[in-house]
Amino acid sequence: MSEFSKNPLNKVVRESKRAQYNKELIYNILDSHFICQIPYVFEETAIVIPTAYGRKGNTILIHGSLKNRMMLSLLNQEKVSLNVTHLDGIVLARSVFHHSVNYRSVNVFGKARLIEEDAEKMEALEIITENIIPGRWNEARIPNQKELDGTLVIAIDIEDASAKVREVEAADDSADYDLDVWAGVLELEVQSGRLVPNSDCKPGLPEPQSAKNFKFSNNPVKQP
Amino acid sequence: MSEFSKNPLNKVVRESKRAQYNKELIYNILDSHFICQIPYVFEETAIVIPTAYGRKGNTILIHGSLKNRMMLSLLNQEKVSLNVTHLDGIVLARSVFHHSVNYRSVNVFGKARLIEEDAEKMEALEIITENIIPGRWNEARIPNQKELDGTLVIAIDIEDASAKVREVEAADDSADYDLDVWAGVLELEVQSGRLVPNSDCKPGLPEPQSAKNFKFSNNPVKQP
Repeated sequence: MSEFSKNPLNKVVRESKRAQYNKELIYNILDSHFICQIPYVFEETAIVIPTAYGRKGNTILIHGSLKNRMMLSLLNQEKVSLNVTHLDGIVLARSVFHHSVNYRSVNVFGKARLIEEDAEKMEALEIITENIIPGRWNEARIPNQKELDGTLVIAIDIEDASAKVREVEAADDSADYDLDVWAGVLELEVQSGRLVPNSDCKPGLPEPQSAKNFKFSNNPVKQP
Repeated sequence: MSEFSKNPLNKVVRESKRAQYNKELIYNILDSHFICQIPYVFEETAIVIPTAYGRKGNTILIHGSLKNRMMLSLLNQEKVSLNVTHLDGIVLARSVFHHSVNYRSVNVFGKARLIEEDAEKMEALEIITENIIPGRWNEARIPNQKELDGTLVIAIDIEDASAKVREVEAADDSADYDLDVWAGVLELEVQSGRLVPNSDCKPGLPEPQSAKNFKFSNNPVKQP
């Protein structure tokens, strides 16, 4: 099946013309980022925490410390969800009302389960690390048993998901097209900045290939 | 009072050395972004939706359509929260375990209330627009009565808040400092990309000053 089925939980209600349920698109958006936003409920208040993640097939993997309140609460929930958002541009319309942003946003829903087996935990940590910065796993010292034991790894098998994407130029009411107001899109991009060595970095070590190759996935505005 | 008081809701538990409650810092992080993540509960599942916002004093302002499910649900909650996250860098340690990201993250908590009075709604829309792209309000056609009537504006008065910031180099276990592994930070920055005019943009209009002046607030790694 190439689409996630629609149900009340993942069905996009507002501006549903921007909604997409295609698995390839959803996986692509997920794989183009590495920080997701995970909500949980604490003392009757919904709270969001940003967290690194990776994807293995139809499963999202996250990790944290053994006492991480957000992560532990996920294991007690019937269903959990998370959001991944790329901010791709500011849409400048002729009217303030039609200003918008270009973005790629995914919400996924599923059941959280604890990963306990060492080999499976190690694989999850490799997937998360490689999703943040491909190639880094083989450059650094991999986790030892003590570190593995001190890490909570959670898998979320995706049951439902939806994407919402805006990637086009500004749209105004017809009466406004004659206004002397410039309309278009200011693209926003995540770029690598400086690669700053630690003050205590061992002298003479070359800059890592993973960092030199790193490229964040941006989405330019689609012109008609 | 220059600090938000700590309580079970906003007190940072994990890696509390990174926690800060200073109002000036929290306002500064809020003012440096314009997309927040708001959680709400639907059919017993916590869901997060990204939304534009602005700040007026100790109040966060958001807007949406009259039927926006997330926004309407906020009005029924005793207390709401939201998160704003800047992703500032990837921290490359000698060990995979100590890899991290540099970030500035704020969670705010408060009560949501509907803004109904026209002048107050108009002011809120101006604050949100100007927080996205300063100077744009005076370049575009401002909302008319019909648009104002069709917009839901919600204020969240901040009762509690906390910031969590990581902005330093990598930290490893002492035994790992002798490894031949490069350590440091790959900075990430949000930059303006192209300014792309609409295909139907009126010919001869100059590029707007707001877009030319736009600058996203990035935070370089602090070196010791």
